[in-house]
Amino acid sequence: MFSPQPVGYVKSPYENTKQVPKGFGVKHDAEGILEILPQFEAGLTDIEGFSHLFVLWVFDRSDGFELLGTPPIDDRPHGVFATRSPRRPNPIGLTVVQLLRREGASLHVRGLDMLDGTPILDLKPYLSSIPSEKLRRGWLAEAEARKTRQK
Amino acid sequence: MFSPQPVGYVKSPYENTKQVPKGFGVKHDAEGILEILPQFEAGLTDIEGFSHLFVLWVFDRSDGFELLGTPPIDDRPHGVFATRSPRRPNPIGLTVVQLLRREGASLHVRGLDMLDGTPILDLKPYLSSIPSEKLRRGWLAEAEARKTRQK
Repeated sequence: MFSPQPVGYVKSPYENTKQVPKGFGVKHDAEGILEILPQFEAGLTDIEGFSHLFVLWVFDRSDGFELLGTPPIDDRPHGVFATRSPRRPNPIGLTVVQLLRREGASLHVRGLDMLDGTPILDLKPYLSSIPSEKLRRGWLAEAEARKTRQK
Repeated sequence: MFSPQPVGYVKSPYENTKQVPKGFGVKHDAEGILEILPQFEAGLTDIEGFSHLFVLWVFDRSDGFELLGTPPIDDRPHGVFATRSPRRPNPIGLTVVQLLRREGASLHVRGLDMLDGTPILDLKPYLSSIPSEKLRRGWLAEAEARKTRQK
C-alpha cells in the first residue's frame, strides 16, 4: 500500500460536525479555501480551467469503523459502503466542489462539507456526470419517500 | 493520518496499462467484479439499490509522483491535480462504475478502468451529478479542440 500524506488543508466555516448541514436534498454551498502546501503548488498548473473538482480528504476526527450504521437521515441501518459515514475502514472522504478562483496555492471553492483543518489527500478534475435519469439512489430514495408520507 | 488497508480487489479484463482505453470521449464499458473481502461484506448491505458507485482504489503498480506531466492525450504538460495521472502524491484512483448486480461479496460492475488485482480502498454511493451545461473541462477541452482542427 502507501503512506498517506497531506497535500494541503481545508479552510472551512465548519468547526464541528454538528454545523455541517445534513438531510434530504441538502445543498452544500459553504465557501472556503483548499490551501495546498507550497511543495505541491506546481501540481495545480492548469487546474483553474476546470469548474468542478473532486476533493479526497481524511476523516481525521473519526475513530475506527462500523460496517453497519444508521445515518442521521434514516432510522434504519445500512452498510457503510452504501452511506457516506465517516466511520469507514479507510477514513477517506470525497466531495465535489465548484472552483471559484485560484490564488497561488489557494483554491477558493464552494460546496464544502468538511471541517476546518481537514487534511487533503488529492484533487482531481471532475470531467463528466451520470445523467440524472440514469441514477438510482437506493435506500436514500426510500427513506425520503417514507418521510414524505409521514408529513 | 491512517494506514490504508484493502477492503477487496478488482477483477478486471486489463492485465497492463496499455490495454486500458485512453483518449478523447473514451467510453469505459469494461465489465468485471469488485471482490470485497469476507470481513467487510456486511458493509455492502443495501448497496444493490444504487445504480452507480464511486470506487476508490490504489495505483499499486505506480512508483513515486511528478507534479507536472504530459498526459497521453495531449502534447503539453499539466499539473498532476488537473489530470488523472497515476503518479500522484497519494496514489489513489477514483472511478465511477455502474453496479450491474451483487452476488454476496462480489459486485458485478461496468465501467472499469483499473488493472486486474487492483486493491480497493472504499466504495461510496454516487448520489448526484453536476449538470453537464455547468461543467468546464479546462485543458482537456482545449486539447480536444486542437486535435479536431489538426484533422
